[in-house]
Amino acid sequence: LPGPVSLYLAGPEVFLPNAREVGAAKKAICAEHGFLGRFPLDGTDGTNGDSGPVTDGHAIFRSCIDMMQDCDVIVANMTPFRGPSMDVGTAVEIGLMFALGRPVFGYTNVVGDYSTRVTADGWQVEDFGFADNLMCEGPVFESGGSIVRTGVADVERLTDLTGFEACVRAAARTLGLET
Amino acid sequence: LPGPVSLYLAGPEVFLPNAREVGAAKKAICAEHGFLGRFPLDGTDGTNGDSGPVTDGHAIFRSCIDMMQDCDVIVANMTPFRGPSMDVGTAVEIGLMFALGRPVFGYTNVVGDYSTRVTADGWQVEDFGFADNLMCEGPVFESGGSIVRTGVADVERLTDLTGFEACVRAAARTLGLET
Repeated sequence: LPGPVSLYLAGPEVFLPNAREVGAAKKAICAEHGFLGRFPLDGTDGTNGDSGPVTDGHAIFRSCIDMMQDCDVIVANMTPFRGPSMDVGTAVEIGLMFALGRPVFGYTNVVGDYSTRVTADGWQVEDFGFADNLMCEGPVFESGGSIVRTGVADVERLTDLTGFEACVRAAARTLGLET
Repeated sequence: LPGPVSLYLAGPEVFLPNAREVGAAKKAICAEHGFLGRFPLDGTDGTNGDSGPVTDGHAIFRSCIDMMQDCDVIVANMTPFRGPSMDVGTAVEIGLMFALGRPVFGYTNVVGDYSTRVTADGWQVEDFGFADNLMCEGPVFESGGSIVRTGVADVERLTDLTGFEACVRAAARTLGLET
């Protein structure tokens, strides 16, 4: 029998003070829908012995890359983070998983298009009806994934898991784990 | 003889009103260092006949993906854009080119570490001595590339090409096009 379908949990939650708790909650939801959820911090304790901080960063990076290569699908939290766009680290992961041929699913807890969040500043603001920069959403559509947009209270914007669960369910249906 | 070494010009300049002019300037610098520069907008006129805006976005995405697959190396503008981090679309492109095994080079016109630009907000701020999120900089170091940080006047932050040229020169040396 093939192993379980592994799902990479990409998003800025790794920066939450209770990151591992959030990771556990996401993994529980994955399990309910037939996935083995993998949380980036699972692969590292955030340190690399007594070496310096840059080396630690490299070790965490390598751990995340290894984990993604082991995963069959990615569900990315595309909620705006520290600006009008999603977390840039998660964006790198979307590009990487797309290049590896994995289906990319995304969710955002902000309903509006990207163009509604950016003020005209002399630069062109793309207005394709996307939740974010077209390079973020393109991998979702081309890989057969989907994006879930959910409106939540501001204070819950980066922690509410309603849209996440809907996204995992969409992935489970697309991959034939659920009907 | 092998063809010229193609260099993908990733960055938020595509949103500048004079984007094609900036692209031409970057391509001229590439040529001086032995590269064929490819600018994302070269592959598209920004429209797709009379179809709607979402289809246009998809066409631009596909054009950029095709161009990246044709390129041997990427030089990414990692200057903070609309927030404390780099442009998310460029971040996706870094992840994609890294996964394709291409050397990733980057430059930023802001000298300080990422940690100096983010205020404590209850979330953890990574402090690895990187210019941005570790997932952005990891592909550079692991692929054999390098990052150039250049301090410039605020008003020139997203247009000054001094650091870009230094980055192209670094890429030319790393790839053996220059000594």
